[in-house]
Amino acid sequence: MDEVKLFGFWASPFSRRVIWALKLKGVEYEYIEENLPYNKSDLLLQYNPVHKKIPVLVHGGKPIAESLVILEYIDEVWPHNPLLPKDAYERSVARFWAKFIEEKTQPMWEFFRKFGEEQQKAIENNYEILRTIEEHGLGDKKFFGGDQIGIADLVFGMIIHMLAPMEEVVGYKFIKDDSFPRLHAWVKHFSEHPVIKDNVPDYTKVVDFLKIIREFYRNSQQNS
Amino acid sequence: MDEVKLFGFWASPFSRRVIWALKLKGVEYEYIEENLPYNKSDLLLQYNPVHKKIPVLVHGGKPIAESLVILEYIDEVWPHNPLLPKDAYERSVARFWAKFIEEKTQPMWEFFRKFGEEQQKAIENNYEILRTIEEHGLGDKKFFGGDQIGIADLVFGMIIHMLAPMEEVVGYKFIKDDSFPRLHAWVKHFSEHPVIKDNVPDYTKVVDFLKIIREFYRNSQQNS
Repeated sequence: MDEVKLFGFWASPFSRRVIWALKLKGVEYEYIEENLPYNKSDLLLQYNPVHKKIPVLVHGGKPIAESLVILEYIDEVWPHNPLLPKDAYERSVARFWAKFIEEKTQPMWEFFRKFGEEQQKAIENNYEILRTIEEHGLGDKKFFGGDQIGIADLVFGMIIHMLAPMEEVVGYKFIKDDSFPRLHAWVKHFSEHPVIKDNVPDYTKVVDFLKIIREFYRNSQQNS
Repeated sequence: MDEVKLFGFWASPFSRRVIWALKLKGVEYEYIEENLPYNKSDLLLQYNPVHKKIPVLVHGGKPIAESLVILEYIDEVWPHNPLLPKDAYERSVARFWAKFIEEKTQPMWEFFRKFGEEQQKAIENNYEILRTIEEHGLGDKKFFGGDQIGIADLVFGMIIHMLAPMEEVVGYKFIKDDSFPRLHAWVKHFSEHPVIKDNVPDYTKVVDFLKIIREFYRNSQQNS
């Protein structure tokens, strides 16, 4: 009855956060790949009738949706290797940044979805977001909350396996050594962590997938 | 050093949630009214440099921003009269609905900001949101999580002191007895709770304030 199942999609940063959290905790689970975007399984629709989206974590038959909610749940049920600090104030800071990055994730992808002037605006917007994280979010520690990977790091992880291949497809690079030294150090620390390194989707496969999506956006724009 | 201060704005549902939480817990605090939207205080900008927005809770000199993050913090620091259930699964359900309503708050106000066809679309969107909450969010208990006011109720509280006066200004009513029986019952239970009843902004004052805002949107539309 305490079976853990995760409904996800291989390229999704939203299910990827949950995979990382489960792996960091060493929780055994069954992974169910959804055939997105067109063929959502009946089980997914049954488990997440409100959003009809992955990720859904099913624990002992009970479904939990929304990646941030799932991460909090995982940290409460399996408290070892904590994803949130113990101190209430530090927890609030971690939640603040997790929420901030969560809300900026879709806007950050606009530079990949748009072209011309709109893309230029999106690029400037990304710089503003990254500058905010550089100046206010990241300190001198390895990760957002300290020396261990926490909830904000898992959310920001999309930088590694989604923003980086998007940059390659678009031909634009945001995070260089000199422009954002703290972000640059974070990328290094996070991507080299053994649990993260062993659980990222194949880079070339993501790039190939994103090339198709980029062409889809290009055609949509030309036809609109 | 354990002084509690809240930076808010009288008509804002975002600081209102925090006021309700502090009152439900019986926490003493100093309330600082911000002169929004044009004259943000230096202290607000210093305490919330990322969003530059209310609410900000300052506890023992340390600032916490983002109303949902503040609610979690309050529940952790003052655990009596809990805002979240004890059970991890029930907590995840409460957080799911708090997040759902939080994300739908701004979209739900579009019917008040828009005119003509766009307003019609916004009205239909509101019905969809309310239907989702009626069918999936509210059960047969008084509040979202049970018989006590919890985090999702505090977020949904904007129905009482923001949506209702918006309806009056626009001349459109969403929640009637027969259309959404559970929502209708929730509105009654929530608005009659002594702590809520004693801590809502003056209805007529909100309506007068919203009439000015509505005219502002009307003029913006005509001039665009």
